This record gives sequence, C-alpha cells and structure tokens, in this order.
Amino acid sequence: MNFIDIILKKKNKEELTESEIFYVIDQIGKAPDYQFASLLMAICLNGMNKTETALLTEAMLMSGDIIDLSEIEGIKVDKHSTGGVADTTTLVLAPLTASCGLPVVKMSGRGLGHTGGTLDKLESIPGFNVSLTQAQAVKQVKDIGVVVMGQTGKLCPADGYLYKLRDVTGTVQSIPLIASSIMSKKIAVGTDAIVLDVKCGSGAFMKNVDDALELAEEMVDIGGLINKKVTAFITNMDQPLGNNVGNTLEVIEAIEILKGNEKGDLYEVSLGLGSQMLVSGGIASTNDEAYDMLEKNISNGKGLEKLEEMIKAQGGDPDVLNDYSLFKQPKFTKEIYLQGGYVSGFDTEAVGRASAELGAGRTSYDMPIDYSAGIVLNARIGDKYDPSVPFAVMYSDSEDKINSAEKIFKDSVRLSDTPVEKPKVILGMVAR
Amino acid sequence: MNFIDIILKKKNKEELTESEIFYVIDQIGKAPDYQFASLLMAICLNGMNKTETALLTEAMLMSGDIIDLSEIEGIKVDKHSTGGVADTTTLVLAPLTASCGLPVVKMSGRGLGHTGGTLDKLESIPGFNVSLTQAQAVKQVKDIGVVVMGQTGKLCPADGYLYKLRDVTGTVQSIPLIASSIMSKKIAVGTDAIVLDVKCGSGAFMKNVDDALELAEEMVDIGGLINKKVTAFITNMDQPLGNNVGNTLEVIEAIEILKGNEKGDLYEVSLGLGSQMLVSGGIASTNDEAYDMLEKNISNGKGLEKLEEMIKAQGGDPDVLNDYSLFKQPKFTKEIYLQGGYVSGFDTEAVGRASAELGAGRTSYDMPIDYSAGIVLNARIGDKYDPSVPFAVMYSDSEDKINSAEKIFKDSVRLSDTPVEKPKVILGMVAR
Repeated sequence: MNFIDIILKKKNKEELTESEIFYVIDQIGKAPDYQFASLLMAICLNGMNKTETALLTEAMLMSGDIIDLSEIEGIKVDKHSTGGVADTTTLVLAPLTASCGLPVVKMSGRGLGHTGGTLDKLESIPGFNVSLTQAQAVKQVKDIGVVVMGQTGKLCPADGYLYKLRDVTGTVQSIPLIASSIMSKKIAVGTDAIVLDVKCGSGAFMKNVDDALELAEEMVDIGGLINKKVTAFITNMDQPLGNNVGNTLEVIEAIEILKGNEKGDLYEVSLGLGSQMLVSGGIASTNDEAYDMLEKNISNGKGLEKLEEMIKAQGGDPDVLNDYSLFKQPKFTKEIYLQGGYVSGFDTEAVGRASAELGAGRTSYDMPIDYSAGIVLNARIGDKYDPSVPFAVMYSDSEDKINSAEKIFKDSVRLSDTPVEKPKVILGMVAR
Repeated sequence: MNFIDIILKKKNKEELTESEIFYVIDQIGKAPDYQFASLLMAICLNGMNKTETALLTEAMLMSGDIIDLSEIEGIKVDKHSTGGVADTTTLVLAPLTASCGLPVVKMSGRGLGHTGGTLDKLESIPGFNVSLTQAQAVKQVKDIGVVVMGQTGKLCPADGYLYKLRDVTGTVQSIPLIASSIMSKKIAVGTDAIVLDVKCGSGAFMKNVDDALELAEEMVDIGGLINKKVTAFITNMDQPLGNNVGNTLEVIEAIEILKGNEKGDLYEVSLGLGSQMLVSGGIASTNDEAYDMLEKNISNGKGLEKLEEMIKAQGGDPDVLNDYSLFKQPKFTKEIYLQGGYVSGFDTEAVGRASAELGAGRTSYDMPIDYSAGIVLNARIGDKYDPSVPFAVMYSDSEDKINSAEKIFKDSVRLSDTPVEKPKVILGMVAR
C-alpha cells in the first residue's frame, strides 16, 4: 500500500477501503506531515461517506487506550458538547442524573480560547481534585454513583496528531473529520451510549442549523455503524447558555439551578440532555417521564445532595454550596451600562473572549486561570434592557484587564429599537 | 498576511490576490511543507483562474535568476516540449531555424525515466560540451546564430520546491500547477516568444486531446497575460515520435532528416514547430512561407551545415555527420520479431522504459548513460508488419539488459488482424 495512491484516490473522489484508512492512521509518525496535510485537504473538499467516516473513527479509536468501565453495573451514558460559552450543563447534569440512579463517569476537558472547561470550573471549588486514576473513578461511581474528572490513559493519539495538523493546514472545517474526531474520543471513554449537544450559532463552531444538523446526523450514524446508541441535540449558541461566564460564576449558577432558584436556557438544555441520558441509560422509558424525574430531584434537593457527595468524595469543600464567599473573590468589579433597547444579539465568541481576557480563560494550556474572573449578564436576547441598571457586571483581579474586556464585551452586544423575539434554545434532535 | 487564511480562501473557492500568491511563494523555506501541501491540494481540487495562474507563474519566475539575452539582436524564440519518447525535434529545429536567420538559444535538460533529454543526446557526440557560461552562449549565438546547452543560473527555485513536493503529495495533475511550472521556467530563460509542443497520448503526461488542449490554452493565455507571445501545438505521442529511441540513435535520425534522407512524423513535427518559430521570430510572415524556407534549407544542405558549425563551436567532432561509426558502438545487437499484423498501437511510455532499461536512460540524475543503447523501430501505427523482417532492433552493452528490455518492448506493441489507419501527428494548435 502506498500513501500517494491513497491521496490520489481521495483526490479522484473514490471511496477509501478499510485497509487504506487503517494504513493511513498507522502511518502517523512514519509518513511525513505533508502527505497527511494533502490527504486532509482532499477529504475536506471531496468528503467521506458514512462508512469511511465510521472506519476513520474506529482506526483513531484503536490507536490508543480504550477505558474499561465494565466493572460498573448498568448502562453508562456519556454526554458531550461541541463547546460553547457559559455551557455549565455538566455540573447540573452529572449529579442530577446520578441522583436518579444513572451511573455517571464523565471525563471532561479544560478551557481553551473562548470556551470554558469543566475541569477548570470544578477546580474553582477549593480542594476539588479532578486527577483520579481509573480505579479510583470506578470505586467512586460504585460508592456514590458519579465522578467528573480528567481523562486517564492515552486516548486516540491519532486524533491528537490529526487535530493539531488540521489546525495549521486550514482543514478543521469538515463534517467527517469533526465527527470522527469527536466520536473516536467519546467511544474511547468506554461508555455504552452517548448524548451529544451540538452547539449552533455565533459562539459555536457550527454557525447555522443546517451544518449543525449535518454534523449531528453524521455522528448519530457513526454510532449506528459501530453499535453505540448516539442521540444528538442541536442547541442555540447565539448567546451564552447561562447568565454567568467564568469558572466560579458558572459553578454558582449550576448550584442555583440545583437549588431550584433558577430556570432559563441553561436549565432547559441541562434537563433536555439529562432526560435523554436517563432514557438512553434505561432509567426512564420516555423523555417526558425522565424530565419529571429530574425536576423532582431538583425540588426535593436530591440533585444538590449528589453534588455535595461528589465534592466531598473528590476532596472539595462542600460548604461552598451554602457560602459562596468561600470561593476565591475578585479584586475588582465593574458594572457595565449600555444604551437602552431590546437585546437582539450577541457575538457570543467575543463574550467568551472578554471573559478569557478578564482572567477566566487561557490561550495556551499552561496559562494560569483566575477562577473568580468572569461576567454576569443581566439581560438576554428578547429582553427589554433598562439603561438605568447594569447590563452586565465584570469580575477580575486586574483593572487593566477589565478595561480591555469591557471594550470587547460592549462590541459584542447588539441592541434594537424594536421588540425582538426570544429565541428557542433546543433547535432540534437527531436519533435513529 | 497569514498562510492558513490563504489556504482557507482557496478551500472556499475564492480567488487569491496578487499579494497572497507572492506571499505564498515568499514563504518557501519559511512556512512548513504541510501548509504548502494543503494549499496545493486545494488548488488541484478548486482550481485557479487564468489571472491567478499567471500571477503564480510570475511569482515563481521572480524567485530566481532571469537570463538576460538582450545583447543578442532579433526576436529570440524558445521551443518547449512537455516530454515524450524519440522526440528529437530540438536537434532538427535548432540548426534548421538558425540557418534561416533566427537567433536560437536553447536551454535543454537531461533525460529521466522514460523520456530522453537533449543534453544527453548531444553528449553522445564525442567532445560535445553543453556546459557553457551565459557569456559564452551569447558569443556563440552572435558568431553562428545557434547554441544548445544546459541551464545556467538558478532559475525558478520556487518551482523546484513545489515540483518536488507535488510529486510526493499526489498534487502533480493540475492544469494551473503544470502550466505555471512550465511557463515560469520558460520565461526565466529570457526569450521573447515561446512555441510549445504539448504531447498527448500513451507516452505523454496528458493522455487525451481535451486535457492537452486545456493545458495548451492555459499556457497560451498565461503568455498573453504576461506579454510573451506563446503558441502551442498538440502533437501525437501514441507512438515514439521518431523511429530511433536512444541517444546516439536519435542524433543519427536528426542528421538523416537534415540530410533530406528521412520524412515522417519527426520531420512533420520538427518543421511544424520550426515554421511557427520563424513566424513568431519575425523571419517569415506565414507558416506556409516558413515551412518552405525550412524545406529549402534541408534540400540545399544549409541546416546540416549549421549543425556542423554548432558541433564545432561546442567542441564536438563534426566528422560524426558523415561517419556514424565515430559514435560509441554497442557491444550487443538483437533483432526483435513479432507475429505479423497491422500495427495498431504502442504503450509508448513502456517503449521509453525499454530503451532506458537497455542503458539509454536513467532513473536518477546521477546514473551514467550508455549512449549507444536504444531501439530502432521498423514499423509504425498503420503499417502492415511482415513477420519475416525484424519489427525492431535493440542495442546495448549488456545481453541481460536486452533480455529484460525485450520483454517490456514486446508487451508494449499492439498488432491487429484488420487494417489500421495511420494517425495524425499534429492534432491541434492554439494561438491567440
């Protein structure tokens, strides 16, 4: 087999065979980068059919470790979001679905660029430890039913290589490449079913519903081809999902939801995804039934209790749940006022960048984070904004950072003189 | 400016600007190979328009030296063939058009793979020197009107880089990339007008007339955009152009044509291209008039005389013109017999490979060549072959090489029971 012949096949719009796709993945570290780059561009432009995409997913999956969760009884369900701003669903979902009896092993990542990361958020809880071994994780799930932690093992190194190369060769945007990248990593985590949250809008990678739907369908179909039940939601990322952007701020918002004090978009998406997790996991038979179970465990406090158990189990201080002053506090606060009007839109990515600028995010993985930094929004799309109250409040340890973030943030908000309709938050769902 | 943004533009089928194209060429040696590879594949699949292709040609041209031939009076016309088998037109054309008053500075290359090279052919003449300085070349043209030599200076290093990378990334086949590669090198040679011979058929890179025509049109249009008069012929390479394949053998065939002893396809193409060179060079006003001039200088011996002057000027032994035994002689000769029938086709590339196998060619530039090696064909497409006479004769210094070349050669010939029409040799012409 010859790499150039494989490139030429894809250049000529031919279907690659199983052995060709596995050969390509096997050539990582052997063949030169430029041959992969050429093939990736040919895939971007000539596509891959669903069989090829599923084979690529499998080949990348097989390139590394696959986590074995078979010791844990029950159907293990993973949830994955394609990444957005103020997307704190995991912190709501993981304890809440676990409180309904679903075994939850959630491996999360860190924030980069304009998106936050669940691990960073959890680490804003004093003492919280996200670095567990696989054995510790399994034990914790057996004990309390839930763990949220960093990845263990070396999962999908082939995806790691291709992902980095795509980033510097203009070959990121490709449904089969995105779908196989996400799916190989999710399957490697060893869960039985996957609920996907494909974000769509100004703060997401997919800017319109058609693209998001195509990606969602591709991933659900890959699941079908490799015998994993995959369900995908398309959700709105035309504005931050929650009202709080930043690590501590987002943890507090998740706690408020579990306390029953807040409803809204974050609530809706969390319970929508959570319902599907309960259905996929065999805990409920319909999404409506599951939704009721989740609502009930908010009102009876069991979801919050489960979060408390998880914080304790992972070394965190559970008193933060009732005393937010135990979180690190910011040195500076600034209220942001805008002209009045109806909120008509956000450049959500810019809101994420403003929050990162305040200290809540990083542009490379070795940068430190200011957990207290971030933005609290007081108005959302469709709201009439009264200019006598602050539109948002910014938190940071640096006044300079507040000044530069303020400019980014102000530019990111669009206001209108005429009323604006509130957008839907769940835009679609794909299941087979 | 940013390389990735340029890749993305081409990925999205947008037109690249002048500054973007020059930026890319400037990045050679700075940006990593994989970014060029990705861009090249995007160009292969999404194309470049004529303006982009002309700009790429110019950018590659400007990456190196441009030869200054302004000291030589008159319009300097170059001829370029896209490469074939038994294509000895230069050895006929250069002295013949020079004998009509055209100043001829022809920089040629060496053979590689199945195609021969003019420099190797000339070096089969004992003593012939192809390594002249630019000053020596200019002086020789002033003195006798013609020089055929190796390239001087460092022409189009950018093309050299991209050409090598295309070879290993499956991005060779692309009309704009092929056209700009050829044209940048031709323009760098400093001539005023160019006559192109785009080969088409089983021994050529372009297998069908449509592709050859598209390439020809592209190159003629590039010429128009950068103010060089370019004319292109499409000629048949479904069989070797001449009857002799191999270095000494091809020189002898050229001499025979200049002596007026041979007509046929090589004669037709040489005089067709040569006529256009005289017209482009302002020596004749119509192709018919030019053709008559060339025919006359064959019958009156002036073409042969000019070849003799050139051989003398470049240190070669002019006595070879009248005594072919002065060429190196092969140790072994073998007559090849086939079943009778009408010759219906050749795998011309395989004929070239058979000749190379005999010792006439090389697979890397540092391999030595056996100048006496090669094949003489006694029958061409459309001929009725009488099996009592040899179909071909092979020459080599090695019996083993004859045996392996014989197999390649025999497999390359197709014979038919029913009569076959003689194919046309000049298939088309493009001029604007």
